[in-house]
Amino acid sequence: MKDEHALKLDYNNALAENVGEHGLKLAEIRRELPRLATIAKQLKAQEEAGQLGFRKLPSAAEVRAVKQAGRRLRAVCDDFVVLGIGGSTLGGIALTAALAHPQHNLLPRQMRRGPRVFFADNVDPEGFEALLQVVDLRNCCFNVISKSGGTAETLAQFLVVRHRLSRALGPSGAKEKIIVTTDPKSGFLRELAEREGYATFDVPQAIGGRHSWLTAVGLLPAAVAGIDIEALMAGAAAMDERCRKSAGLNSPAEVAALIPYLAHTTRGQNVNVMMSYADALYRVADWFRQMWAESLGKKLSTSGQVVHAGQTPVAALGATDQHSQLQLYMEGPFDKILTFLTVERYRREVKIPAPGRKAPATAYLTGQTLSRLIQAEQQATETALAMAGRPSLALRLAQVSPHAIGQLLFLLQLATVYAGGLYGVDPLDQPGVELGKQLTYALMGREGYEAKRAELESWASRHKPEFVL
Amino acid sequence: MKDEHALKLDYNNALAENVGEHGLKLAEIRRELPRLATIAKQLKAQEEAGQLGFRKLPSAAEVRAVKQAGRRLRAVCDDFVVLGIGGSTLGGIALTAALAHPQHNLLPRQMRRGPRVFFADNVDPEGFEALLQVVDLRNCCFNVISKSGGTAETLAQFLVVRHRLSRALGPSGAKEKIIVTTDPKSGFLRELAEREGYATFDVPQAIGGRHSWLTAVGLLPAAVAGIDIEALMAGAAAMDERCRKSAGLNSPAEVAALIPYLAHTTRGQNVNVMMSYADALYRVADWFRQMWAESLGKKLSTSGQVVHAGQTPVAALGATDQHSQLQLYMEGPFDKILTFLTVERYRREVKIPAPGRKAPATAYLTGQTLSRLIQAEQQATETALAMAGRPSLALRLAQVSPHAIGQLLFLLQLATVYAGGLYGVDPLDQPGVELGKQLTYALMGREGYEAKRAELESWASRHKPEFVL
Repeated sequence: MKDEHALKLDYNNALAENVGEHGLKLAEIRRELPRLATIAKQLKAQEEAGQLGFRKLPSAAEVRAVKQAGRRLRAVCDDFVVLGIGGSTLGGIALTAALAHPQHNLLPRQMRRGPRVFFADNVDPEGFEALLQVVDLRNCCFNVISKSGGTAETLAQFLVVRHRLSRALGPSGAKEKIIVTTDPKSGFLRELAEREGYATFDVPQAIGGRHSWLTAVGLLPAAVAGIDIEALMAGAAAMDERCRKSAGLNSPAEVAALIPYLAHTTRGQNVNVMMSYADALYRVADWFRQMWAESLGKKLSTSGQVVHAGQTPVAALGATDQHSQLQLYMEGPFDKILTFLTVERYRREVKIPAPGRKAPATAYLTGQTLSRLIQAEQQATETALAMAGRPSLALRLAQVSPHAIGQLLFLLQLATVYAGGLYGVDPLDQPGVELGKQLTYALMGREGYEAKRAELESWASRHKPEFVL
Repeated sequence: MKDEHALKLDYNNALAENVGEHGLKLAEIRRELPRLATIAKQLKAQEEAGQLGFRKLPSAAEVRAVKQAGRRLRAVCDDFVVLGIGGSTLGGIALTAALAHPQHNLLPRQMRRGPRVFFADNVDPEGFEALLQVVDLRNCCFNVISKSGGTAETLAQFLVVRHRLSRALGPSGAKEKIIVTTDPKSGFLRELAEREGYATFDVPQAIGGRHSWLTAVGLLPAAVAGIDIEALMAGAAAMDERCRKSAGLNSPAEVAALIPYLAHTTRGQNVNVMMSYADALYRVADWFRQMWAESLGKKLSTSGQVVHAGQTPVAALGATDQHSQLQLYMEGPFDKILTFLTVERYRREVKIPAPGRKAPATAYLTGQTLSRLIQAEQQATETALAMAGRPSLALRLAQVSPHAIGQLLFLLQLATVYAGGLYGVDPLDQPGVELGKQLTYALMGREGYEAKRAELESWASRHKPEFVL
């Protein structure tokens, strides 16, 4: 699966020529090409100024170091738990869901040939305690991931785990079970790791959380799950190369940015549904949700104007969601564009046998395969939507492989950065989450947030909660 | 947890008084009360005409029969697999995710005191084969659920399972592992069950798929997972009673319908985000996604006018999605209303210990609890959004319990039916999924769909797939 065209972008059904007025005219698309060329130049300049960290892929030596650590961890632990949230877990989750066995954690140890892999990505006490209940602390390694080293949820999880490990194994035993992935120099986790002697991996300073899947953040859990991270890297590099060599309507990243952007800004399609027709790719849609929402959902443009930009990403799963969301997609408002994720060759084949006696009701199924069925459903859904005037894109994978997943994630990253340029916003920051953090600190009584606390109380006193049933 | 007010609806932050122009004025809300009263009357008439099947709760005897079957299955099988899709699985998934142990399938048998429970809700060959790989066919029961008895995906799964069971256990051994839940009289599955002697449960004819969680469809898997289905029923009955006794601004169902409807139709908020601050309730949001999308996403009004109604439901999880979606919710377009699901008392408590030495960076966390943290984050997020002029509702559960979940699901069902009245559409049908089904049959070569196949080919020949990168 090293074919660099293992991933195709098909935009036929996004065009007015195929779906009518809610689709885009080729002329409209072409009109934006000069803007895309300008954006490409700006991105190039940003890259040269070191501001586009994710585009500098890790060196072979860095990947090898992660691979070796992964191999060691596969041998020494029975459980591997990632403590993190948001960008610290979404990449690892997407990679393992796509490329490990779909029931990895339920396989017998000898079939897994490595530990069970868990991602603790919330601070719900019910969920977190339940997870700690099923892992065996004596044979469990914890990978604490926070770029800043100060994420509240991750620190809370970590403090709980550290205490329990110390109780179970003593402080020096505990130390060996903890691997910290954080900023190379600063932050609470970095300081603690140095003081206590934890193994560490770096998150390069120039790479933001949501772009960190190709660092130790995403690659270490993937390696522990037995995934070929060198092939992932090669896939990303192939897509990088492909997009560097092409431009405009020949560049998959530019087309994947331009079409949803125009669908939103010229056709009012403020919802962008990524509908995967493979269980394995459903969590890629979840990873993309963060990428698209956090990068493009901005109040201010780069020139400081109030724009309130952003298209809402939605994750859907075919064929399942045909029985849940398709009715709305077919008949509801014309407020959506879909992106299908399709697979040409599934990694397994399942034949559908006959039901014993003659049964006309199932004759169309028997002798066929599940892949034939799910592919027919995908094609039928895409076509039915097109016939109903509903536009869609498709990202078609030849097969779900590390190389193809590397291509896919890198394409979506690049496309998002181009979309930032089109919307005129900075796709690399997230200023809007600050207020919620500060109010959380205020409510938790953190030192230095007394004024925020007062502001919160004053707001609350002016907004009495009268309307409760 | 039998308090009938274990569930509160708080709409303060949906009001313009609290969030400004993107919120609703009380006067606007009151203006719709006469329409709601008319809709309530229509629903009453529909109910009396037997058209609102879900509102007739199952009898105590029916619930007891399911409970007994559940108890027997808990004793005799090690694995329990539901074969179904859409409404046949979403209820069971929501119930078990909310009320069984969060790591149910990874607990040792003696702690589970019942089988592992799986929902096979897709026809992806990779996912389906992986599931069959981890269950032991000799000790596994399969619950095949399809109201019509003819759902393509479910029949395909079933034919595969039936063949493998026969091979492993012989036809009579296979028979004992299969339980069919389907229409009481008609359909392929009903006929086959009678011919082959499978155990069966009925889906009452008057209850549609997405409303079937309170029939054997949802209750049997819940009972097998060890959930108190009588308390679920009691919760649903309590909410039913509460909504029958109240009207207008005193009725939680009417308010929960009216506010998102007005948010959509008067403020352009075409996206309805259900954001749960409990892992346990995340799949309730998924169940609700079907309810809201499939019920309200309609091309035609009940009087035959083209309306293209429907608001797009989105599921989100707090605190996790604060690190993924919140940036967009805070700063993006004013195109959303949120519904928070909150919990006052979590079923577990986890203390956050100190990190050994003095550490100012974590002082605000130590000595507190994870529930305190997640609740502070919920309150902070809700308030930050309100301060930014972003409206929200909240459904506040005293605790996640069978009774409270019964109330919650029933409330959301009723609210959806009221919303159907407000949008002027029939919330009980789903005509838009027909075309996709017919095209699937055509592609699979089903007899009788030759004309559809020709139509598809003619469409394809007129829409050449030229635009592929």
